[in-house]
Formats: sequence, structure tokens, C-alpha cells
Amino acid sequence: MIECWFEFGSNYSYLSVMRIEALAAARGVTVRWKPFLLGPIFKSFGWETSPFVLQQAKGAYTWRDMQRQCEKYNLPWTQPSRFPRSALLPMRVALLGAEQPWMGAFCRCIMLMNFAQDRDIDSPAAVSEALLALGLPDGELMAAAVAEENKLRLRAQTEAAQARGIFGAPTFFVGEEMYWGNDRLGDALTAAARG
Amino acid sequence: MIECWFEFGSNYSYLSVMRIEALAAARGVTVRWKPFLLGPIFKSFGWETSPFVLQQAKGAYTWRDMQRQCEKYNLPWTQPSRFPRSALLPMRVALLGAEQPWMGAFCRCIMLMNFAQDRDIDSPAAVSEALLALGLPDGELMAAAVAEENKLRLRAQTEAAQARGIFGAPTFFVGEEMYWGNDRLGDALTAAARG
Repeated sequence: MIECWFEFGSNYSYLSVMRIEALAAARGVTVRWKPFLLGPIFKSFGWETSPFVLQQAKGAYTWRDMQRQCEKYNLPWTQPSRFPRSALLPMRVALLGAEQPWMGAFCRCIMLMNFAQDRDIDSPAAVSEALLALGLPDGELMAAAVAEENKLRLRAQTEAAQARGIFGAPTFFVGEEMYWGNDRLGDALTAAARG
Repeated sequence: MIECWFEFGSNYSYLSVMRIEALAAARGVTVRWKPFLLGPIFKSFGWETSPFVLQQAKGAYTWRDMQRQCEKYNLPWTQPSRFPRSALLPMRVALLGAEQPWMGAFCRCIMLMNFAQDRDIDSPAAVSEALLALGLPDGELMAAAVAEENKLRLRAQTEAAQARGIFGAPTFFVGEEMYWGNDRLGDALTAAARG
């Protein structure tokens, strides 16, 4: 079992979310999805936005790196015209879906909207489109997603991330071992497959 | 040809400096060594020390990550009792040696002192020991290393790093393509081998 802590606004989460289900299945590993919000964690460091925006040189490098990484993994890529994109609504839906069979497909759909189609993902139109494409009751799910109880659950999950030492996304856990970044997905899966 | 920009105080540089010559040789790639100082670059971001010290959660993770990475690469590892260690003297010697046949062995020796033996590396005793082990004239080289001209050259090389967009270490260049971090050494060598 591998826990995948991610956020739809995070470009390196994109690389992992697109690949993790297939890679895990090939090794007989179960994925446990853990959506959480990066914003409050960055704020706790005194950062008002992504380090890729705050540090100009690192940001410039990141976009070139993403281009090369997507080529390597054969994933589509368009540099988002807005970064980081807020993703509150799809994150809330992802929290609802975390243990549902449609979770992986829903996450890939939202990620592609952000990082391949350069679309606003924090809108009922986008989320509804993603849910309908999977044959899901969009209105019902979005209503449940914005219910107070679910909002509080996402806040609690974000606090749990921070309490566990998470400082960026994606982050993987295999038991108590933490692995940070898409670059560690392979190592994390190897550890998970070892059991 | 691959340029390897590194600093002896940097733990992720340790992973690359220990491995790059053998990996590059296996692919018929020449290594061009580029020692530079990380401190002035971090200072330009308003940081007084390493981000692994400034960000507590990231720092804690980094030491566990180093342990696992060293196991993976079969490298010795001891968490330095002082981090980041200043490395001015060995960096200045490395600049002198950058195009000498003993450069790789000297760098590995200093890196092992820092990250396997937990020793102070910014001392004439340590640097002298490393040079003598390679059969080199330690006194002569250290005198040349601290000569004003060589000090200025190291400062200029650090400014060149910054002008090229380097924001951390290790960083590799293959032509104009920049690759940041030990995790990109493989991709950088693949690009270098392609020519």
C-alpha cells in the first residue's frame, strides 16, 4: 500500500497522479489517495505562494524541467498561464472520491485540464465536465463536496499532512517512511512492493 | 561533455560527485568540473543558511532521504554534526584542480571526509591529508589556492553560476540545458551521451 498525498495545483503532483495507478498495479500495490491543500502549508513557512513563483531562477528552471519530464514520461504538457491555480472545488470532490473506484480517472482528468489544456479547474463547469465524463452524478457530488462537513474534512486532512511532516507535493508514504516528490515515486513503489 | 557544478558543503552534491566519473566514463562522456560557492547564491535569495536548516520539516526529511539514497547507491553515510560545513579552502583547491587528472579523486576524498567521516573539511590539515593521499605537493597547492588571484577566480565562477540561473547544487549543464539535482544526473548523462 502506498499513500499518495497530492494537490491539483502542483505541477510535480501532475507527473505522479498521471502515472501512479498503472505503476502500482504492475507491482501489485494498492494506492491510497490523500488529497490535501498546499497553500496553508506554504503559508506556515511564511510563503504567500509557490516557491516556483517566489524564486525566479527556480521557477524558470521548473518549467523547462516539466517540459523534459513530460517528454520522458510521454505526458502532454502546456505551461499553465496561471500558476499556481486554486483547486478548492476539485480537491473537495477528490476528498469525497478518495476511496471510490472513479478516483484515479477523476484526478487524471482534472490534472490534464490544468497542465495539458491550461484551463481553470476551480469552477463548477470544469468539475462537472470531469464528473459527467465518468458517468457520475455531478450535481449531487458537487453539493456534497461543498457541504460544511466535507470542507472541514479537507482542512483536517491538510492539518494531518502538516503534522506528518509533509512540506510539499507529491509526497508518498509507505508505512512510516516518507518520500517527497515525483522523483521518489519509483523508490516508494519499490518499498511498497517489498511489503 | 557534462558540466558538474557542485559545492563540498552540499549533501546532494556528495551523491553526484561520488558517482559522476564512473557513470560518465561508462557512456563515453567527459566531465567538466565547476566548483562554485552556494553561500552567496543562498544569500542572494535572502537566506542566511541552507534551506534544509531554514525549513525544519524539509531538513528532517533530507537526512532520512540521504540515508536511503546512500543505501541505494552503496555509498557510506554519516549525518554531518555540523551542516552546512564551510568548505572555502577545499573549494579553492578544487578550482585549481578542475582540469587536472587528480580532480575526481580529490573531490571524492573531501566529500567522504564531510559526509562519511563527519570531519571538518575547511582546514589545512584535512586538505593536506587529501592531497598527500594522492601524492600531490600539498603545501604548494594550498599556497596557490589561497593566492588572491585564485580567490577572485572562485568568486567569478560563483557569479557565473548565478548568471547562468543556478540556484542550488549539484547542477549539470549539457550545452545550454540545465539539470538540477542528483536526481537529474541520469537524464543529463543521457543527453550528453546523445551528443
